Amino acid sequence: MRVDLNSDVGESYGNFKVGEDASLIPLISSANIACGFHAGDYDIMSETIALCIEHQVKIGAHIGFYDLHGFGRRKQVITEKSLKSLVSYQLGALYGICALQQAKIHHVKLHGALYNQVAESEALSRAYVESVKAFDESLILYVLSGSITEKVCESLNMRYYSEVFYDRNYTAAGTLVSRELSDAMLTDLHFAGQRIISLLKTGELMAHTGEIIKLKADTICIHGDQPNAAEHASFLRTQLIESGVELI
Amino acid sequence: MRVDLNSDVGESYGNFKVGEDASLIPLISSANIACGFHAGDYDIMSETIALCIEHQVKIGAHIGFYDLHGFGRRKQVITEKSLKSLVSYQLGALYGICALQQAKIHHVKLHGALYNQVAESEALSRAYVESVKAFDESLILYVLSGSITEKVCESLNMRYYSEVFYDRNYTAAGTLVSRELSDAMLTDLHFAGQRIISLLKTGELMAHTGEIIKLKADTICIHGDQPNAAEHASFLRTQLIESGVELI
Amino acid sequence: MRVDLNSDVGESYGNFKVGEDASLIPLISSANIACGFHAGDYDIMSETIALCIEHQVKIGAHIGFYDLHGFGRRKQVITEKSLKSLVSYQLGALYGICALQQAKIHHVKLHGALYNQVAESEALSRAYVESVKAFDESLILYVLSGSITEKVCESLNMRYYSEVFYDRNYTAAGTLVSRELSDAMLTDLHFAGQRIISLLKTGELMAHTGEIIKLKADTICIHGDQPNAAEHASFLRTQLIESGVELI
Amino acid sequence: MRVDLNSDVGESYGNFKVGEDASLIPLISSANIACGFHAGDYDIMSETIALCIEHQVKIGAHIGFYDLHGFGRRKQVITEKSLKSLVSYQLGALYGICALQQAKIHHVKLHGALYNQVAESEALSRAYVESVKAFDESLILYVLSGSITEKVCESLNMRYYSEVFYDRNYTAAGTLVSRELSDAMLTDLHFAGQRIISLLKTGELMAHTGEIIKLKADTICIHGDQPNAAEHASFLRTQLIESGVELI
Repeated sequence: MRVDLNSDVGESYGNFKVGEDASLIPLISSANIACGFHAGDYDIMSETIALCIEHQVKIGAHIGFYDLHGFGRRKQVITEKSLKSLVSYQLGALYGICALQQAKIHHVKLHGALYNQVAESEALSRAYVESVKAFDESLILYVLSGSITEKVCESLNMRYYSEVFYDRNYTAAGTLVSRELSDAMLTDLHFAGQRIISLLKTGELMAHTGEIIKLKADTICIHGDQPNAAEHASFLRTQLIESGVELI
Repeated sequence: MRVDLNSDVGESYGNFKVGEDASLIPLISSANIACGFHAGDYDIMSETIALCIEHQVKIGAHIGFYDLHGFGRRKQVITEKSLKSLVSYQLGALYGICALQQAKIHHVKLHGALYNQVAESEALSRAYVESVKAFDESLILYVLSGSITEKVCESLNMRYYSEVFYDRNYTAAGTLVSRELSDAMLTDLHFAGQRIISLLKTGELMAHTGEIIKLKADTICIHGDQPNAAEHASFLRTQLIESGVELI
Repeated sequence: MRVDLNSDVGESYGNFKVGEDASLIPLISSANIACGFHAGDYDIMSETIALCIEHQVKIGAHIGFYDLHGFGRRKQVITEKSLKSLVSYQLGALYGICALQQAKIHHVKLHGALYNQVAESEALSRAYVESVKAFDESLILYVLSGSITEKVCESLNMRYYSEVFYDRNYTAAGTLVSRELSDAMLTDLHFAGQRIISLLKTGELMAHTGEIIKLKADTICIHGDQPNAAEHASFLRTQLIESGVELI
Repeated sequence: MRVDLNSDVGESYGNFKVGEDASLIPLISSANIACGFHAGDYDIMSETIALCIEHQVKIGAHIGFYDLHGFGRRKQVITEKSLKSLVSYQLGALYGICALQQAKIHHVKLHGALYNQVAESEALSRAYVESVKAFDESLILYVLSGSITEKVCESLNMRYYSEVFYDRNYTAAGTLVSRELSDAMLTDLHFAGQRIISLLKTGELMAHTGEIIKLKADTICIHGDQPNAAEHASFLRTQLIESGVELI
């Protein structure tokens, strides 16, 4: 049993300091770094990359809509062509800052509304994966486990990690319970961790309505912008290691 | 006699359409494309790169302060470290959009207040040239002719083009007459063109106070955001060709 | 027969100069001034108000989503509470700049996606009209003719002008033909003007599918951000006056 | 002995939550609310006003440069005309949101770089005070104690509160020690409080170089964006009350 542990980091902006990156980053395997569109800026990106290098954490581009005020959580109608430019711009921006520190991008993950819109659309998934492939064929895409984006990655011969969310409930169909519903989030940390360990052992997870669903889990997402994100990560990390899970 | 003709393009933003790129780009050798900080966005960049490819115009990153409202013309205090991140972010962003169209970045040019601040500071020039070098050693820097940035390029073994401005007056010291002075700009197009041709022949140019100064000119800048930029470019282009100057 | 002629103005932003305000404003009765959210800024607003005072044009707040890059044309989910704050902020901002020139706000109009979303929702219409009423009971709301917003104005005792669009086609249901359809816009200026004159005479207008619909028209909107907006306004103005329509 | 206690609040922006407004506001007399230019937005302003009403704290407009990324701390060259529009826009915006809650603006304070630039310039001070006066003659200006802005307020018959900073050192000339110097800030809270109490008793304060300077103190500023701002405010509040100072 082995799994990657990822978190969204670098979400400060200028004087607006949010998150707990300095204490969170040492606890994770993969960092999804905001690229200046929904959060982050060139200075924050540079600091965050330095933290990743220091703690040998894999560097990823966290790519969102161009929407600082909405934090990339507002849906936008977007064409496939514009999506490609949106992705490539942010991927390139992170690549540029990495170049200053001889660092390399390891993976790519979409953020917020963009993550969901792409996961539900084959056309947008194709545009997304093609833009990553045009940039660097060796990048790994972190995608919603069971989503159509996985199939598109396969058809375009791009590597991907199926992602499962530590603290989100799942529907019987294997999708995330909407944040607008009251049971979207798990609040019992111990249970959340046990659920992940059980998933890693069995490939199965219980939906919020009780059904058993099959889910592949290459990487587990800890939300970096939650209160106490570092504490949660530490708790999960300990649970995983004590259960014999190898963190990659 | 040969010279490169460059212009600032891709300066629209969302619905704010400015400039005359479609008619200007076919007339120039090198396009300095705004990278989303002082102007431009991911869609505009993509369209502008397509125009450059179509007309076989060299693609460059036009890098400015993160200041859309001030169009990058407001001075900012900036550290060398932050300057490096600012440059690398924008350079990378353009590189990303280029990757979608199998295009390559040819050169880099600073914009507005950043252009001037760097040209006057050895420390900032060094940070600037180092960040470009860390990104791609083969890029050419378009720098103010006679400025300290030229010397820094030489010391760091980076190629540069010395840039002269078509429609700006020069001081006896070889610097640009400040835009705050009434004679900053040349208004007589015919004279402006003759001045450039004479400069290419002799390496000399008359300062606004009458002195003769020596100036190297590898590339001539036509301002893309001036009214009638395309008309001016066409006029200069004709003058140059008729005088036997080869446009590279 | 009398009608108000309104147009969207003050849509420049910093160095991004768009529209033809100086030539358009003298031709209209009412100016809808962008308030810095989808377009405009404090300097542009000040210049635009000065133009309105000079030409005795009525001053209105043009209120849009906080979305400069999307020019307020992207839909956003918005709560009634947030809508009230959005409206009041922009209304107040224009009021503040007016105070510097002893000018008064005459009317309020929503912009882009916000205009449409409010016109289709009684709850949002109520929030909108209540926020205007809380600000100043004497303001006139320019609202889509036939929309639910009109009824909400009536129920809250607020004055309104029913607005008809000069160059937009209408459906048999009296709504605007979507911009996504090919016949959204009228392109024959002469016909567009005759259609308005006929509407003012009869209260009737032909839908794009041929049906006759009833429509009240207190104010006609000329789009300020179309190419040749001033020319179109001049053409319509002449047509109206020659047909005996009084411009109020 | 009586004094007003003011703090900068409402400095969150969208999803970027900063400061400790909920615990800080009950402890102060006057709230300086960011108006969306250097921090804050229409939703945050609405929430902050509601907190002020609940705790009967006086509402003020905190007016800064249009510079979210730099948090209004970057100097900008600004004309007197543009300054007037900048001030009036933000003052009006807050007035608009206040109107929704039947609240009234009590005072105005400049923020960051703008505060300092205006305090050092008679021409900018005049433009500032004139713009506030044009908006509402009854507003009180919170200005740097001893600055030229005080004299301009007097000459224009506008009320002002002389402001002293709780945790900033002063020069022998009565100005603030630059934040670039190591002793800009007081770190000993007990001493800082005693210094204020002594100032209220004697009208005198010791400069960082040991000289005694005379300073008027109508209001004391606690910085809202410092870590532990609420704790500091609570500490000072207790010190003041125990020393017999009345908080107005």
